[in-house]
Amino acid sequence: MSEAHRVVILGGGFGGLAAAVRLKHAPAQVTLIDRCNYHLFQPLLYQVATGTLSPANIAAPLRNVLRRQKNVRVLLAEATRVDVANKRVVLSDGAIDYDTLIVATGSSHQYFGHDEWEQYAPGLKTVEDATHMRRRILLAFEAAERETDPEKTKAWLTFVIVGGGPTGAELAGALAEIADDSLRHDFRRIDPRSARIFLIEGTDRILPSYPPKLSAAAENMLTKLRVTVRVGAMVTGVGHSSVTFREGEHTETIPTRTILWAAGVLASPLGKQIAAETGAKADRAGRLEVAPDMAVPGHPEIFVIGDLANFSHQTGKPLPGVAQPAIQEGTYVGRVINARLRGGKAPPPFHYFDKGNLAVIGRAAAVADLNWLRLSGLPAWLIWAFVHLLYIVEFQNRLLIALQWAWLYVTWGRSARLITGENPLPLDL
Amino acid sequence: MSEAHRVVILGGGFGGLAAAVRLKHAPAQVTLIDRCNYHLFQPLLYQVATGTLSPANIAAPLRNVLRRQKNVRVLLAEATRVDVANKRVVLSDGAIDYDTLIVATGSSHQYFGHDEWEQYAPGLKTVEDATHMRRRILLAFEAAERETDPEKTKAWLTFVIVGGGPTGAELAGALAEIADDSLRHDFRRIDPRSARIFLIEGTDRILPSYPPKLSAAAENMLTKLRVTVRVGAMVTGVGHSSVTFREGEHTETIPTRTILWAAGVLASPLGKQIAAETGAKADRAGRLEVAPDMAVPGHPEIFVIGDLANFSHQTGKPLPGVAQPAIQEGTYVGRVINARLRGGKAPPPFHYFDKGNLAVIGRAAAVADLNWLRLSGLPAWLIWAFVHLLYIVEFQNRLLIALQWAWLYVTWGRSARLITGENPLPLDL
Repeated sequence: MSEAHRVVILGGGFGGLAAAVRLKHAPAQVTLIDRCNYHLFQPLLYQVATGTLSPANIAAPLRNVLRRQKNVRVLLAEATRVDVANKRVVLSDGAIDYDTLIVATGSSHQYFGHDEWEQYAPGLKTVEDATHMRRRILLAFEAAERETDPEKTKAWLTFVIVGGGPTGAELAGALAEIADDSLRHDFRRIDPRSARIFLIEGTDRILPSYPPKLSAAAENMLTKLRVTVRVGAMVTGVGHSSVTFREGEHTETIPTRTILWAAGVLASPLGKQIAAETGAKADRAGRLEVAPDMAVPGHPEIFVIGDLANFSHQTGKPLPGVAQPAIQEGTYVGRVINARLRGGKAPPPFHYFDKGNLAVIGRAAAVADLNWLRLSGLPAWLIWAFVHLLYIVEFQNRLLIALQWAWLYVTWGRSARLITGENPLPLDL
Repeated sequence: MSEAHRVVILGGGFGGLAAAVRLKHAPAQVTLIDRCNYHLFQPLLYQVATGTLSPANIAAPLRNVLRRQKNVRVLLAEATRVDVANKRVVLSDGAIDYDTLIVATGSSHQYFGHDEWEQYAPGLKTVEDATHMRRRILLAFEAAERETDPEKTKAWLTFVIVGGGPTGAELAGALAEIADDSLRHDFRRIDPRSARIFLIEGTDRILPSYPPKLSAAAENMLTKLRVTVRVGAMVTGVGHSSVTFREGEHTETIPTRTILWAAGVLASPLGKQIAAETGAKADRAGRLEVAPDMAVPGHPEIFVIGDLANFSHQTGKPLPGVAQPAIQEGTYVGRVINARLRGGKAPPPFHYFDKGNLAVIGRAAAVADLNWLRLSGLPAWLIWAFVHLLYIVEFQNRLLIALQWAWLYVTWGRSARLITGENPLPLDL
């Protein structure tokens, strides 16, 4: 094995995992490095944050997924820097040499230069983010039940979601259902149905990457769930007990104790670091501008894929930071490496095949844009459920999720609504 | 409602919840206070710690369980003291008055005066304990895979469980199965089957509260799973990378990086505090010695039940700190209060009906002592599985757990083996 070509993959998300799987029969020794021991199905993370699913339902241990693929080893480690000149990845506890490197370390949320907002407005990228968000949401209802001051109670029962992309829309819909149905009989002093939910989007419509018709359908569904949608609204202040935003000339402040952040994506710092060492360009979001074959320009031995890559050769603008491009890029790069190692013909430049977009708003309510077909309502929801179950990595998880969705559909019961983590008491009333 | 008799229940475990349910039709306003928002099915907590189940599978939100019981309200709060003279419970964020009080705040683990051992030997009482233990176990295998020094690798692959009661025996069995089967194909450098598992018990046999025959059967099963059982062994030292114990004259030190604590129970501090204010007696473990009707002697308005109570009127020694006595005591106290409020005849003194004991060692391996029947092996395991599913509070969780057990039985797959919590990197190699 020591003679084998060494492929190092940084990140076990959709892109990195697809690349590792595609390299199954490649004459290479593959090392997949991630700081988590599991592959996370991020599109369903909001369902953990809203108490429908458990973290383990949407996470598959990487070692387990790749256990039969003998040319891959998995390393629990954090990459801090790529030493391009010496073909070496520096880890927080060591280093590893590569012949070919695939960087798929993804992105995190960002606060547009206002990092101090994070403490008041948690984002949603990791399992820990999701259980933290779940804790914040549930504690808000608990605090409202304990609070005696009506103004303060109202602030506890006001939820503001910043960012009207798929995650924000899905969070808003799920929150509305929690307040209206799941918690309906749970409290004695407050009526959870009096909760107010705001969805704030900076552009002129929610789901801005979808066709306008579907944005309108989604907004309509959210409004029916009593979500207040505010578009063209830029958040200018986030604090302990309020959020402030500007709509044109008009500035508004909403007293709230729960602000959820679903806006602003920032690529992993490795993008800028590699760009600086290689002379490649990184865009404003920190994504590295890749060559048509997903390699770093001038460095065919380094590929950058997924959220970290700015691939704009096809449409003139970067591909969206969702699962489909990452999976296709990972598979493509696996093919390129395989061809190189076997001395075969290099595949043609990467081409993204857009299968469409889906977002769920609530029970039997979703929007689907399959390019050849646009749907909303129940049909879209069924497609959404089917596609998500299809892409979930472990069969056991498919069963568990299907069972919990069926349960939710029939009873409105969200059983995973636990407040976990450090002792939350005394409540911050 | 303000005229109604106020019953305050401290603790939403088996005892407190049983009391609340029994008071359903009582002419009383019941307040159930817990610092968690869920009822936890502690007998399966070790399955969370060993990656079989998710926390939400064994936790039922208290508000949800009691949502239809209109005379009960649930309060997320922490009781810090009972002001007996003023009939008032002091909370960490307020206070609440009672006419009748039921104290069911249970117990925690203790380190026999060596609190400094806790950092090296985590215990298992809460959801957070379980995910922490799971993290420690999984990180040990990860560190072993990264470690290059053979002695250090061996220490990472050595697991020592202190305490041979049901929790310790169950943990040891599950750990052995993880090492032998669940992780079998997951690593490239280490062979998880080379892991050594020690179960250390201070008395002369494991499961000391069970009949000797079943202890022997359990030890036999554990030995078959390659667990090393050491009885009559008193732990004298717990450190960063070793555990020391004494067997008679002989002292032994085992190098290990994972010590799990399943010994030593300490009652909630409210027991001693109430004893001090009322002149009642508390035993060495902090349990309050109750009257034959589970009330504090001289204070018929305060009941103490479950792990916090020392009820020795029946057999001369305290009832075991498991679910059955707590449930029966909770129900009994509910009956007593109901009779008082309705002016009925007081029920006879509490009598515990021992339905038997069960402990699971591994796949299709368990011991059962039903008093009229003693079983081990597969029949005991089937009874164990049936009884546990029966007592799980929510129907959805029954389905989810049954599905995951079936999956485990067929594939050995433990899907909930996530390392969560603060960033574990760099590894402590």
